[in-house]
Amino acid sequence: MKEKTYPEYTTHYPLLIKGCLKRPLTLYPDDIAMVYRNDGGQYSRFTWRQWHERTCQLAHAMKSLGVKPGGAFQPGDRIATMALNHHRHMENIYATVCTGAISHPINIRLSLDHMAYTITHAEDKLVFFDDLMLPLVEALYDRIKPAVQGFVYMSDKPGLPKTKIEPLYEYEELIKGQPTTYDWPDFSEDTYAVLYYTTGTTGLPKGALYTHRQVFVNTLGMLTSLYLAPRLPDDPPQQNQLVPLLIVPLFHIHAWGAPFYHVFAAAKMVFSGRFTPETFCELVQTEKVNTVALVPTMLAMLIEYPDIEKYDLSSLTRLSVGGGALPLGLKRKAEKLFPTMRATSGYGMSETMAGVLSAGIKRNMVDWPEEKIDEVLVKTGVSRPMIDCRVIDENGKDVPHDNQTIGEIVLRGHWIMEKYFKDPERTAAAWKDGWFHTGDAAKVDTDGYVIITDRITDVIRSGSEMVPTVLLENLTCNADFVLEATYVGVPDEKWGEIPMALVKLASGTKATEEDILTHLQREGVDKGKITRWMLPVYVAICDDVPKTSVGKYDKIAIRKKMDEYTSKAKMVRKP
Amino acid sequence: MKEKTYPEYTTHYPLLIKGCLKRPLTLYPDDIAMVYRNDGGQYSRFTWRQWHERTCQLAHAMKSLGVKPGGAFQPGDRIATMALNHHRHMENIYATVCTGAISHPINIRLSLDHMAYTITHAEDKLVFFDDLMLPLVEALYDRIKPAVQGFVYMSDKPGLPKTKIEPLYEYEELIKGQPTTYDWPDFSEDTYAVLYYTTGTTGLPKGALYTHRQVFVNTLGMLTSLYLAPRLPDDPPQQNQLVPLLIVPLFHIHAWGAPFYHVFAAAKMVFSGRFTPETFCELVQTEKVNTVALVPTMLAMLIEYPDIEKYDLSSLTRLSVGGGALPLGLKRKAEKLFPTMRATSGYGMSETMAGVLSAGIKRNMVDWPEEKIDEVLVKTGVSRPMIDCRVIDENGKDVPHDNQTIGEIVLRGHWIMEKYFKDPERTAAAWKDGWFHTGDAAKVDTDGYVIITDRITDVIRSGSEMVPTVLLENLTCNADFVLEATYVGVPDEKWGEIPMALVKLASGTKATEEDILTHLQREGVDKGKITRWMLPVYVAICDDVPKTSVGKYDKIAIRKKMDEYTSKAKMVRKP
Repeated sequence: MKEKTYPEYTTHYPLLIKGCLKRPLTLYPDDIAMVYRNDGGQYSRFTWRQWHERTCQLAHAMKSLGVKPGGAFQPGDRIATMALNHHRHMENIYATVCTGAISHPINIRLSLDHMAYTITHAEDKLVFFDDLMLPLVEALYDRIKPAVQGFVYMSDKPGLPKTKIEPLYEYEELIKGQPTTYDWPDFSEDTYAVLYYTTGTTGLPKGALYTHRQVFVNTLGMLTSLYLAPRLPDDPPQQNQLVPLLIVPLFHIHAWGAPFYHVFAAAKMVFSGRFTPETFCELVQTEKVNTVALVPTMLAMLIEYPDIEKYDLSSLTRLSVGGGALPLGLKRKAEKLFPTMRATSGYGMSETMAGVLSAGIKRNMVDWPEEKIDEVLVKTGVSRPMIDCRVIDENGKDVPHDNQTIGEIVLRGHWIMEKYFKDPERTAAAWKDGWFHTGDAAKVDTDGYVIITDRITDVIRSGSEMVPTVLLENLTCNADFVLEATYVGVPDEKWGEIPMALVKLASGTKATEEDILTHLQREGVDKGKITRWMLPVYVAICDDVPKTSVGKYDKIAIRKKMDEYTSKAKMVRKP
Repeated sequence: MKEKTYPEYTTHYPLLIKGCLKRPLTLYPDDIAMVYRNDGGQYSRFTWRQWHERTCQLAHAMKSLGVKPGGAFQPGDRIATMALNHHRHMENIYATVCTGAISHPINIRLSLDHMAYTITHAEDKLVFFDDLMLPLVEALYDRIKPAVQGFVYMSDKPGLPKTKIEPLYEYEELIKGQPTTYDWPDFSEDTYAVLYYTTGTTGLPKGALYTHRQVFVNTLGMLTSLYLAPRLPDDPPQQNQLVPLLIVPLFHIHAWGAPFYHVFAAAKMVFSGRFTPETFCELVQTEKVNTVALVPTMLAMLIEYPDIEKYDLSSLTRLSVGGGALPLGLKRKAEKLFPTMRATSGYGMSETMAGVLSAGIKRNMVDWPEEKIDEVLVKTGVSRPMIDCRVIDENGKDVPHDNQTIGEIVLRGHWIMEKYFKDPERTAAAWKDGWFHTGDAAKVDTDGYVIITDRITDVIRSGSEMVPTVLLENLTCNADFVLEATYVGVPDEKWGEIPMALVKLASGTKATEEDILTHLQREGVDKGKITRWMLPVYVAICDDVPKTSVGKYDKIAIRKKMDEYTSKAKMVRKP
């Protein structure tokens, strides 16, 4: 008898992103799935059933516009978005990937040159854009027109604007009348699903590609990590429904996995238009938001917001910070504002789909004094158990776990990017000996926590030593009078480089360059956290510290204007 | 430039069971991993590091005995165990699967014939057995000798017994001196890992085979389900460390996934020798056990145990019941004994690796009155979101969700078995139209919960109607004076079959056959839960209700002695 089996429904049952939709649609179809407050202050709400019906309608509409799926390891049509976070953006991602095409959320904070480059390099077939983005798309139009076959205008107001952009479709018109169900096809889990470009701080942006399997396994990995994260005795009890305010942009490495695991979890996803402290506070209060992920800059903006105490933000119990180190000072200031909140930092990059390290405590630490726990929570983190993470020296050997020796973070695992889209050279440069080289310099402490010290290329080398700039940044930010601080190396004949601090003071404070040095001496050198030679030689107090589009300190921009900064800087000690 | 990528470390990074080991070994190497109390009352404890070192030693020892791994979809050597639950059994499972061989835990409660059949059918190369099993292995020896190449004797006492079994190795001698590390190889995730035989209630046992990918995806699915399970307002807070007492045998469908997800979670796994109420209570008290999975019979034994109130069992906050329906009466009696405990039922079978349905509440139910929630928790369950579950009629159409229409449960998904080992006929009989047919009859209520009514083959057909025997069993057990109850159909000329109840009374109670009928009339018929024609015509009060080796009511055994039961039964109403 010939054996008839169904591997496609068992051993090879594909790991597809459409699997995220099953849980909300089966268990909670009539719960609110998404809440959107647009910049005009209007709210829209959709249940899972309603949102899914719109997603199905969009999938039919895209098919009618000729969008073609890809096969296994055969890129499908790329569908791009230039949009803030909202239900339409989510509809676009799911309608695209569940039909087998590739979703490409464009980073709208890139330079025009880089945006035009990513669109033409990705060969985006359709570009969906928010009404707010109209001037941007018009500015790009002549350069991207040859690549793009159609544009879709997304707006809460009916009608199309007067513009040279064509062919231009109106989103709501496009989906209206389409069938509200779609028989999402089965296909290989190796089909590409999403394409995210890096911010291109070291050249042209690179396109990180991910398959369905990678995204789905990451989703399970994220939820498993959340389950296994130890809780502190005074942590508020876990909520039965996650209510995330999604302010990390969807174009920023999958908003750290949020569009996938929050759907699987049937969370109530809350979206604002542009990030402002006002709308943040309004939405947390109205929608009882309980979890937020953000970058340090946003947290700094909230701390500076004078009206914050007028809002009831007590629902907010979990805050994770990524996209830059979380300085302990900033964390403490934030926790004063949100007493029920627990802030932890994490680490990921465009090439890792979402987070790969997070600074969660280990369960043997739950009884530690608060101060010691706080120090753990601002470390870069320990590896999530499904990603292999090492910190290696120049010979490929693991650095000792001595909280001192600096090496490079290398990674591999289920959701580490296999290759850059159409870019074998830079793929080969990143992957060496079976490990993805992050370019981030770090040390490992005795508890096994990785602590980022700098980008390998941004390291300040003074004498033969490497200055731990992130540590210095954190120590400097601990001062009540400091809001932001970063460090760069100033060329020096004798030492190679000497450290200069760029500092933005907290509003209403009057501190001098010497106060910074005194603070670092007292809190850093005297307490044995740094040694004297690491202290800044120059301190420049600035109105603003340059940052990249994702909120990291922009060392390239700073170096370009190095003369300007050194001329306004004050020498606070002899090198 | 030729593109060099590493799919084996990214898009195709294999989903292997060895992935479960990473988290405990990285984060918690010095925490206690396993505690074993043997039948003599002696305790052994191992940290993750120690247990893993022993596992590595065993892997080396097995290699030296000639154990060979398999490839993708190429069965490797089968290594069998005849053992209770303990650290050595766990070492055996991991050393076997992580080297690419197949672990076959033998169900020691099968008949000798069936045990001999599974060992020869599986062609087990080595059989590891507990000292307690010596008489059993001796009884099987002549029949299994031709198939088995070697035996390994596991005991807490040194030395080998006098026996005809040969070649016979002593476990501790075998691993002593072997290297304490093992470079667990990478191989295809499609490699077979585990082989479990069904209990063979309908013929010879069938061997359900699973691949590494299936086990690992199930592990992530289980942990994700635990994270997303809604909590009731008065549920105790979640513990940072799971402390399971593993009393469901490891040979019983992977103890419902426990040996894998509890390792991933770095739980403290507690093992007793043979299950007795005394050792259960002692271990819960000493080790602060917080989670237990068991079958209804074990729960009934605990309820009957007179000394139970002498123990502090307050650590036990979660109890899941499977392997048979959880009668509401039994649940209520159990919750009186363990006030902090929450008992929920679930459903799975040898062909589903672990649980596929569980009776967790939905989050909109958390405010329901306790009585209504209790009724949910004893249903069979709703589908975990990663398994496709339908209840279909004879034409393959979904039955309406009317809490009434009976159909068959069919399944597919990541951890549904693809095929029985060397058994294409019975594989083909179970898989029809791309769905695995469970043979279990069920209805679906308006909330989408599946409620098992019977095995399709055990259904009582009275007139043209099917009698919901599981519902009747539950209603009967609700009576304070009933400990166990089951129903079978007695042949009848007019009706085809008429229902007979077999009842075991709670100890110390004196109830009559008529009391049972009165109870069913008042709690069932009068409250609209059943209709009059479903009431038993015969009631037989027995000292014991026959059960299979996994604690299910054994309808085949009952039917074999039908005359005996009908002769002692009393007719309580006219058919």
